[in-house]
Amino acid sequence: METITVRTREHSQLIDITREIQALVSESSMDAGIVNVFVPHTTAGITINESADPSVAHDILAVLDRLVPWRDPKYRHSEGNAAAHVKASLVGSSVRVIVSSGGLKLGTWQGIFFCEFDGPRTRKVHVALQPVDLG
Amino acid sequence: METITVRTREHSQLIDITREIQALVSESSMDAGIVNVFVPHTTAGITINESADPSVAHDILAVLDRLVPWRDPKYRHSEGNAAAHVKASLVGSSVRVIVSSGGLKLGTWQGIFFCEFDGPRTRKVHVALQPVDLG
Amino acid sequence: METITVRTREHSQLIDITREIQALVSESSMDAGIVNVFVPHTTAGITINESADPSVAHDILAVLDRLVPWRDPKYRHSEGNAAAHVKASLVGSSVRVIVSSGGLKLGTWQGIFFCEFDGPRTRKVHVALQPVDLG
Repeated sequence: METITVRTREHSQLIDITREIQALVSESSMDAGIVNVFVPHTTAGITINESADPSVAHDILAVLDRLVPWRDPKYRHSEGNAAAHVKASLVGSSVRVIVSSGGLKLGTWQGIFFCEFDGPRTRKVHVALQPVDLG
Repeated sequence: METITVRTREHSQLIDITREIQALVSESSMDAGIVNVFVPHTTAGITINESADPSVAHDILAVLDRLVPWRDPKYRHSEGNAAAHVKASLVGSSVRVIVSSGGLKLGTWQGIFFCEFDGPRTRKVHVALQPVDLG
Repeated sequence: METITVRTREHSQLIDITREIQALVSESSMDAGIVNVFVPHTTAGITINESADPSVAHDILAVLDRLVPWRDPKYRHSEGNAAAHVKASLVGSSVRVIVSSGGLKLGTWQGIFFCEFDGPRTRKVHVALQPVDLG
């Protein structure tokens, strides 16, 4: 298992970590298999979406903010970041990508995004490789 | 890794691909393990839900349309399909199912659905098998 | 593959099953790898979120109820639990956690929660271990 560090700069922010994940795969000897990317935080998530146009990341965050507003008198969690926890469960805590010929089998427009919902913070992402025995 | 093709017919559509996934497992020599199903698109997703009653798929799409309407002047993504991108991140890009005795360990009512959010299109689904060594 | 039983007591309820999952890992001989946790139901889900403060689970359920109300004349599914199906697809049917030195590599505040959306019921959770050969 490897761990990478992500420094977020905004309260809500999607950060493309595709290069970092591909670098870990390239540094390993894995030709084919699955790469598992896991976020060990409860106010952040991870998703795969379009990396070419940054407005997509903006729209994802804006819709999440509308659906799960930061302030709501009905929230019971006393730390003030209930919305970040809810968003984490809507988006999810891990993604997996198939690796083939040493490369991530992402679609043309896909990138892997760390989702900060209660930043800015210094965050961690765990990465575990599962080689497939092609023997 | 195998790739199957899915032709969607509607703008928003859930298509049951359980049979195609089971067929790939059956064609392999895998008795036990995990099958990973991955969508390499940013305006489509994949989910597991009830396959017996097609009204469930209808209701899932209808709620997503209400929560993430197709038109919203606040969207910044200029291609007009921001809603499809947001839905892709809410639903997710991959599912995994446990394989036991050569069969998908789905619940009685569960099926695997490709989720088209910006169709109709011809789409791809990647499938990677991870046999478990029971030795 | 192992299967654990979860008895839910409420109509909507998040139940922390982290100890049960860790127990299965501990009982196995797996030192490192991935544990896959899969819900074979279409009106339940599974998520990873904060386990220290139960108000977080409350807020997650409350927001889901607001976004996907139990009653809506537009639902077509005739069994009356369309909302539970929609929530299942928003939250997802499986989670994975990295195992290292025999322990779940969860963050400090993370727990694994079975998500009941149409209870109370007796439910099942399938667990499949994927050891990594560190040879």
